[in-house]
Formats: sequence, C-alpha cells, structure tokens
Amino acid sequence: MATNTLPNRPPQSRESNVDVLIVGAGPTGLMCAYALMQAGANVRIVDKRPECLVTGQADGIQPRTIESYGLGDRLLREGNHIHMATIYIPNSEGDIESTGRIPVIGTEGTRYPFLITLNQGAIEALFCDAIHSLGFDVHRSIVPTSIELSQDNEELANPTSHPVKVWPALAPINSSKILIFVVLQHLDCSNATEIVHAKFMIGTDGAHSWVRKALDIAMEGEQTEYIWGALDMVPITNFPDTRIRATIRSPNGSCMLIPREDDKIRLYVQLSDEDILDPLTGRSDKDRMSPEKLLEAINKTFSPFKMERPLEFDWWTVYISERLGQRVASTFSVKDRIFIAGDACHTHSPKAGQGMNAGMSDAHNLAWKLTQVLRGWSDISLLKTYEFERRRYAQDLINFDKEYATLFSCKGRTETKIEHENLLKAQNAFGGFITGIGVQYCSSSIIIPTHQWCAENILVGQRMPPQIFVRASDGRPYELQDLLPADMRFKILLFLGNTADPSQLEKVQLLAKDMESSESFLRRYLRNDNITSMFDILTILAEKKELVNIMDLPKLFRLHWSQVFVDDLDVTRSKGGQGYSAFGIDPSQVTLVVVRPDGVVGMVAPSESIDDVNGYFASFMKSSEV
Amino acid sequence: MATNTLPNRPPQSRESNVDVLIVGAGPTGLMCAYALMQAGANVRIVDKRPECLVTGQADGIQPRTIESYGLGDRLLREGNHIHMATIYIPNSEGDIESTGRIPVIGTEGTRYPFLITLNQGAIEALFCDAIHSLGFDVHRSIVPTSIELSQDNEELANPTSHPVKVWPALAPINSSKILIFVVLQHLDCSNATEIVHAKFMIGTDGAHSWVRKALDIAMEGEQTEYIWGALDMVPITNFPDTRIRATIRSPNGSCMLIPREDDKIRLYVQLSDEDILDPLTGRSDKDRMSPEKLLEAINKTFSPFKMERPLEFDWWTVYISERLGQRVASTFSVKDRIFIAGDACHTHSPKAGQGMNAGMSDAHNLAWKLTQVLRGWSDISLLKTYEFERRRYAQDLINFDKEYATLFSCKGRTETKIEHENLLKAQNAFGGFITGIGVQYCSSSIIIPTHQWCAENILVGQRMPPQIFVRASDGRPYELQDLLPADMRFKILLFLGNTADPSQLEKVQLLAKDMESSESFLRRYLRNDNITSMFDILTILAEKKELVNIMDLPKLFRLHWSQVFVDDLDVTRSKGGQGYSAFGIDPSQVTLVVVRPDGVVGMVAPSESIDDVNGYFASFMKSSEV
Repeated sequence: MATNTLPNRPPQSRESNVDVLIVGAGPTGLMCAYALMQAGANVRIVDKRPECLVTGQADGIQPRTIESYGLGDRLLREGNHIHMATIYIPNSEGDIESTGRIPVIGTEGTRYPFLITLNQGAIEALFCDAIHSLGFDVHRSIVPTSIELSQDNEELANPTSHPVKVWPALAPINSSKILIFVVLQHLDCSNATEIVHAKFMIGTDGAHSWVRKALDIAMEGEQTEYIWGALDMVPITNFPDTRIRATIRSPNGSCMLIPREDDKIRLYVQLSDEDILDPLTGRSDKDRMSPEKLLEAINKTFSPFKMERPLEFDWWTVYISERLGQRVASTFSVKDRIFIAGDACHTHSPKAGQGMNAGMSDAHNLAWKLTQVLRGWSDISLLKTYEFERRRYAQDLINFDKEYATLFSCKGRTETKIEHENLLKAQNAFGGFITGIGVQYCSSSIIIPTHQWCAENILVGQRMPPQIFVRASDGRPYELQDLLPADMRFKILLFLGNTADPSQLEKVQLLAKDMESSESFLRRYLRNDNITSMFDILTILAEKKELVNIMDLPKLFRLHWSQVFVDDLDVTRSKGGQGYSAFGIDPSQVTLVVVRPDGVVGMVAPSESIDDVNGYFASFMKSSEV
Repeated sequence: MATNTLPNRPPQSRESNVDVLIVGAGPTGLMCAYALMQAGANVRIVDKRPECLVTGQADGIQPRTIESYGLGDRLLREGNHIHMATIYIPNSEGDIESTGRIPVIGTEGTRYPFLITLNQGAIEALFCDAIHSLGFDVHRSIVPTSIELSQDNEELANPTSHPVKVWPALAPINSSKILIFVVLQHLDCSNATEIVHAKFMIGTDGAHSWVRKALDIAMEGEQTEYIWGALDMVPITNFPDTRIRATIRSPNGSCMLIPREDDKIRLYVQLSDEDILDPLTGRSDKDRMSPEKLLEAINKTFSPFKMERPLEFDWWTVYISERLGQRVASTFSVKDRIFIAGDACHTHSPKAGQGMNAGMSDAHNLAWKLTQVLRGWSDISLLKTYEFERRRYAQDLINFDKEYATLFSCKGRTETKIEHENLLKAQNAFGGFITGIGVQYCSSSIIIPTHQWCAENILVGQRMPPQIFVRASDGRPYELQDLLPADMRFKILLFLGNTADPSQLEKVQLLAKDMESSESFLRRYLRNDNITSMFDILTILAEKKELVNIMDLPKLFRLHWSQVFVDDLDVTRSKGGQGYSAFGIDPSQVTLVVVRPDGVVGMVAPSESIDDVNGYFASFMKSSEV
C-alpha cells in the first residue's frame, strides 16, 4: 500500500494518494474506516459535519451487530439493554391494555438475547476513539465536489493503481485523463480545495448521498406513505412499561416506546397529514411540528396512561416517507472501484431498528474484501460479491420493512386481536432477519453450500453460530465466536472427532499430509512463509478435557497450544458440550469449516473433499507464486 | 478532609498534611490507596523502589479477589486463567505419572471457578493506572526515617486531628510534641527530607516492614523449615500439563508448576540445605543458586519428562523460611492510628498462592472503615475491628500454611497414595479458605449473626454469595455481587416476597413506615438529606418478570427503577431463579440483609426485628444530629 503520503494529517500539499477515501463518518463509514485501518490500509475519512453527533438519530443495535465487530464490550457497557417487549391493544373502553410481556428477541441461537440502545453520538465516539488509537482521525468540515474515475479497463483491474481522484472544481469534470480523482472542498475558513487520488472510494454519506448522486446511481422502489415523529426524553409517567419495548396500537394511532441509556426513552408516534401539511403549499413541513405537539399526539395513544411534560426534550424529529421512501440503489458500485454503503444505498422506515445495523453490515462485508484486494491476496473480482450479497439483503430489508410498517400502522379497534396475532407472527417470522443472525447470503464464488450435509446446522451463507468449547490445554471455556475475530483472516475450523481412536487419528494424519502438500491452499496462498498471517487454524476434538493430550496431534493442527479445543463441559459442568451434535457434525468424520473474515460460513466439507476447499480459495485468491 | 495541601505533587514546602499516609506501593498499599482515593480521601502513597515491578514475585489471584475490587475486568482480560489441576506421583519405576485432571477450585459457589495468574508488575500497573485516573500517583524513591505518634488520648480520639507526622531526622524522635509526624527521606539526587502530618498511616511495606519495626511490633510464630526455588520461563518440554496447575511429588523432591500469562510457567521446586548452604559460614546463601541449578533440580523431579533449557529465564528467586518464617504480627495497629497490612503483618510460604490475596483483603477490610471514620460517619472505635477480623484470619492462614506445606513437602515413594489422598482432602477442606470465598469473620459490633435463621445460607460474617436476579423493570439479569460494588456504602437488601399478595404487601408497607420513621437508621445517620449517599437499597421480589409492577411498592423501596429485582429466570430461561431457596429465605416473610461496604454480610434480620438493624448501625455510626 502507498506509504509516500501522510494521509491522516491535513495535507500540506494539495494532492495526496490514499488506498481508500471514505466520504461520510456516520457509523457505516466509521466502521469501514476502522476495519481498514486496523488491517493497515492507508485510509482517509472525511465528513461535512464539523463535529461528532451528540444525540438523536439511529440508536438501535441488533444482536448480530453486537456479536460481530470486536467493539461489543464498550457497546455492552455503555448501552441500554432491552430484554423484553410488550404490545398494548385497545380494550372495550377504548383505552389501551397490555397483552403481556414477552422476550424482545424471538429467535434462539444468539449470544446476546437483547437489543442495545445507545445514541448515535456515543456509537460514533466509540469508533472515533478506536480510530484515534490507531493514529487516525476523521477530517471534518470537508465535502467532495467532484469525482472522476479512470476509463482505462486495464488500469481499473490493477488494484495498486489510484483510479479515484478528487478533481479541482475548476477543472472540467469529464476530463479525458484516465485516472480517478476526487476534489475535496474544506468548509472551514481556509476554504481550501485539494485533490485526492484514491485506489478505492466509499460513499457512506447517508440517504441524500452526494457520492451516489455524483455517480448518477438511481434509487429504485416505491414509497409507503407514512409520517412519524420521534422524541427522546426522561419520562414522568404512570405507564408501567418504560424499560421494555412497548408497541402501542390504540384507536387514536400507533406509538412505539424504546428505552434508552440514562433513563431516557425514545417514542415513535404515527402522525397524520394534517399534523404536518402546510395548507398553503400542500407540502409536508417539519417546522409545523414541535416536541410539545408530538407529546400531545403520543398522549392520545397512551390513554388511560399519561406522559407528563418532561423537564426537557432531549431530541426530536419528524420522518416523512415521501422524502426518503423505501428504496434501494440500482447498483452499489461503479466498476468495483467506488462503492456506496449504508443509507446511501438503502432507505426505509426507522421502526424496526435496522438502519444502522444494515449500514454497519455493509461495511463489515466490504472491508475484508477490500483488504484482500489491497493486499494483493485476492483478485479484484472478489469485490463484485459486495453488491451481490448486500444489494439482495437490502431488497429483503425493504420488503420486510413494507410488510412490517403496514402491520404496525394499522388503526382502529376492530380486528385488533387478529392484527395483534399477525404482528406477533411477523415478528417471529422476521426474527432472524431483524436480529441479523439469520441473514443468508446466496451461493457464489465465496458461498459454496455443496457439502452442507456434513455440518447440517452450520448454515453456509449465514454467520457462524455461537457455541462454547473448552480449550484442551487448560480447560478454559471459550465462546467460538470470540475465537473468530474480524481480523481479516479466513478461519479454518477442523472438527477432528476423537483422535484417541487410532482409525480416526489416521484420517487426521492423512488430512494433515494433504494440507501440508504444495497443492493445499495453505501453501499455495502463503505469504511471508507464515500460514497464520492469512489463515487461522482452530482444532476442535470430540474428547474429554480430563484425558486429551494435544501432543498426539499433527503439528499443523496445534500450531500453538491455545488453538486446540474439546467439545466438553467446563469444570463447573455448566458451559460447553454437545457442540458436534448442535452443529450436526459426525464425530467419526473429519469435517472442515471455512469461516470468512466477516464471520460468515463460506463452506463446509468433509476431509475427503479437501480438493473442493482448495478450489474454494482458488476461485478468488491469487497464488503466492505470481 | 484536609484541602489546604496538594498531596499528590512533590511538596514545595517541607511539611504537608494528609488524611492517610501509606508506606509501600505493592498490591496491598496500592489497593488501599485506590479505595481511599476513590472515596475522596487525601492520600499520599510512597515507595522506596524507583519504579514499578516488571516481573516475578507474587502472582496468584484467588476467586474472592477477582470478585471483590471492581478491577476484575482488567484482571480477567490480562491474566492467565487456571481452571484445572493435576497431581503427579511416583509409579513403580520411580518415574512420575498423572493421577488425572481435576478442577482447580474444589468449592461451589464462586462466580470465577478458576485462579488468575498475572505478574505482580501488571497487577501494580493496573492499580497505578486506576490511581492515576483519579489524579494521584505513587511517589517513589522515598523512605520514612522516623514516626512519632501523639500521646494525647483526647487528640487520638478525634478523627480530624493529624497525630501521625514524619519528623525530620535531625529532630529528637521522642519529641514531647503531642501530634504524630513522619519524616520522609527522598532517595533521589535531591536527598531532601520532608515532614508529613497524617491523620492515619498504613505500613504496607512488606515482610521486612520498616513501619512495623519502627513501631516495635513483634512477629510471633514458629518457622517450618523449607527452602524453595522459583523460576519463570516459557517451557520447551514434552510434559503435557503445562497449562494447568501441576503438583509433582517424586522420590527426588517436590515441584509445583503454575501456568502464567504469555505462555510462561512458574515452577516452585523444593531445595535442600546442600543446595544453598555456604560450607564456610554454615548460613544459607541465595547466591549459591542459579536458574540453571534450579532447572537441574526441577528436571530431577520431572523424570521421565524433560524441561529443556529455555531461550531465557524470565525471573527466579529462592525462598528461605528461616528469614521469614510463618509468623503473625503481635498487633496490627498502634492506637488505631497507624496500621500494618499485608506481608508487613503476616508471612508464610508462597505455594498456596495466598500472599497477595491476603494483603489485598487486609486493604479491602481497612479502607471502608477508615473512610467511615474520616468522613465522620462512624466512631473511631470501628477501626478496632480491623485487627480483630484480620489478625484472626492471618493466624488461620499460618495454621493452614503449616499443614499444607507439610503435606506438600513429603518425600519418598512409600505412602505416596495415602499422602496423595491427604493432599486432595486438605485441598477440599481448605477450599473455601484458599479461594477466599469461605473466609469467616467472628461476631463483633459489625458481625451480628443473631437472626441467621431467617436467611440460613447467607452466612453472617462471610462475603455475600453470588446469585443472579432479574431486574423488574426491564427483565435484564444481574449478578447480585455486581450490584454490591465497593463504593463505601452499606447495602440494604430487602427480600420482600410476593407483594402481589395483599397480606404480604401490608407487611412491606409496615416496614416502609418503620424505615421512614425518625428512629430508623436511614434517618438517624442521614447526611446531605440523601439516603443513597450512605445506603444503597436493593429490593428483591419473589415475583415473575412478566407480571411485576413496581409502581405498587412503597416509594422507599423503588428509589430508582433500576433498584428492584425479581427472583426469576431471564428471557433465555438459562439465568437466575431460585434465589430465595438458595439463600434459605422464606418468601412469605420480609427479610433484610445488611451487606458491609466490603461485601461481607453484617446482619440478616426479619422485618419484625427492624430495631435490631437500627441497633446494628447505632453501635458504631454517629448520629447526623451530633
């Protein structure tokens, strides 16, 4: 990667080279920047806002988001945890009453059976601090003013070239020059402009994305009409369910209460055209609303309970669907060099708490692929899978959102019970999707479900499920997901069965021989003569912690004593065990699981099909001999 | 507390006032300093060493130590966890063989069923960082050279006076002045002396404590003869149990292997007089030993396994009992103004991994009492309970150590099986003591077991046992111990039963009335008109999270929504529940549990005996009217 610039300081010269230019420092952009910076990439991230957000906006964090990005500890500590939910429906007096408290997460198989709420400012701060600790910072008060992408296909195919450039506003946009440039305009008093040459560029600049518009990418989709108000405050109320998610479906409208950090709640309330329409222009106008009016609308739905006027309103806004709609960008990239992610490529309603999670998942999906390409490990074609996987997900998200919003917005006292049942059913049906843990990527060069039978419950295309195993050398229990950090390495899980059985050990030794051979992916894609810089090999035995002796294993399968685990209970007999059966793996077989750097299962295979595993990596990795 | 000095900067003047002067910045001193500083006390901590330790010395952390001090997260992250243990005994060929792997902690009822090993330097760094974040630092290269304590009993009884002073070396030690002074000598090039006037002083300056000697406090006890070598290294070996605690009892001597952080192990090996005795002087001489000789002795005990010479020896030492012995100081304080803690008041062998834990527990016991007195909340007589509780513990520790050391040191091939059984039995019998979770304080003004019957398994005088309860308002599971931080407040746990039952609610309302009355301890000892600055009230109901409505409770028992819990399973049905029965509390009664600021149960009582609870606090707390 380029080392001849100092990307993280305001450039002294007016031109600079970077690996990746990211426009927009919301959670999606920050997440992506952090991942790439951690991987050693030369990243510049700019934002038009002069400062971090301090409150409001997106703040719902789903279980999969907590699992995945290595910053979960601080999220868990700072955020509010929502474990339960309730739905209120009208009773015969027309007041609302609770249908009972239920778990907020309807799905099994997550380590974090709850949602986290934390204001977007705190989430951005978490990433900004992490970025800062790597020696980087967000450059603020900066907007791009033009982008030009090379038209030279040969150059575009070369990952070391800098085809993205920000071009001086004065220069002709359609310059015949073949590289890509971005012009950045400083909004501070310097009013300076500069040119950035980037190998890759990512637009994470929100629903009104400048990058998307500059690239002339259309948003496709319909618009379900809705107007919602959102209000944050510390409640003063006799309503008993202010610390669980409460959905209110009253004859006077719908409302959703979401508890937050610092005793606060967020209230979403459905508004009608009259609340917001300007009678003169006929257009909806946010300025016609106020927090007091929102509270009034909220109190209509809460009867017989009362939300008093709080000491202060922490934040409020109005969402108007006609301005954003439920839409997906027609493409997520231009020539696999410029990408858009997050709200820049999909917009929807805020209620299911998906927006930030979807954006961060985009970033999670893109970052490792960009890293592979930047490092010269994988072919640039790997980047095509970003759009393939994430655009389909975005379409599913929009479809889900439409259905969910329709159910949620129903009015009227009649049919309420049926609607209530429907809402519950929908929540269960969409559970895996809402939490993110059931998101499924389709077959592709990096999702090969051919041998799904050999590990039936490790679904190829979904994230690796959680399971506790016990470390062989010291009996310490570990959550498997914690052993699969987003460190840009593919993880190779080896389920070797019971190697105390000589016939099983023989199979294992055969596999070791195959994997040591020059045909093996471990050798073909080796860099720096070090397997572990690209692959992390974890061995899981169907043995007992009291009896296991890892010295019996081939050296390749115990590169360090800490890499070998057993499928057994821990010393308290309360954690671990039953992992083989939970995963549907036969302990008399030898089974490989390939986990992508983003925690998604890319392939499962029996040891006899090691050639297919070699083929998996051959389809996108560049041989080290080249 | 004094505010007219800047205690944490090297004094500009040669005299300064502090609340507490601590001499010795090992784990005990640092722990005590951190606790007092957190509580807002004006503390000066000095140490003769110019720098933090970087390696070696004590490093075994017991379960109770992990539970108790609020710095557990970093300990858990940085330290090595030991979950299992094994004992090797001689076989018929005279080689050693394993008797099998067993859990390292023999006792139930701990949240952390493992030991942590982390070098003392890292533990000191953890406290130094925490102290630094409070705006303090350890002042290094400083030793006290004289102490003088006021002889004026009236002044000694006044907690706001500064009876401890460090006196200039030039002045007469037995000055007729009535205050206490300490003279500090700077060992750096300044060679300066200064005088510190302290209200209280704590000597945590180790086994050869200058403070203890200056106060002429005798060490009492016998000496079991032993010589042990200790060696830290990254092993290169065919011995399979390098990541669990391995006790080796071979005909050629005894050895103990303790895994540590960074792939290292600590080896303790029994030496004989010949290894260490100087034939000329007849005295034992550490300089006759070397790490190579230690490794040689170790390898004798390990046959048929072999410990290769490592790339480097990280640390080594020799413990000679005749120099330290197994002894307890005759008193732990002088006039409840100057205290000694840690190795300064008890010395023993290193093998059971108790030293640092015992010292930190001393600090934990002393800090809250000193804070109560410094704040003027409790009578100075409260400080007498420090020696009462901790000296008895130290005596038990010495007795345990003698028995354990004798068992451990046995030699010879005969009787090995019996000895092995004895060792196992001893480990089980002493389990609660070794882990620290079974340490029992005797009856005193602050340990009142009168009503033990009403909560049979919350043992008065022991630390509050762990138990998961679910928060009523949001269904989030909490470990009770995490709700009892060492924040200097007494915790009042109210087990109110099922308040949905009207007759139970009546009892609860009666208790609330009693506790709101002017006779109640909540009112009598109130400061700043704020109950929660001195007491933390937690309510635990025998109800279901789906049905509970905390609005029904008296306001006193739900001062904040986060203070009310139910004894129920969490949404995953895997955590919580059965707390009343585990504690032996009848849900048709109303039961109070008083937990001291150090997590020790001071009293349990039925609501009918609320007067006894008032009496508990009356025995040492100062009424706010005075």
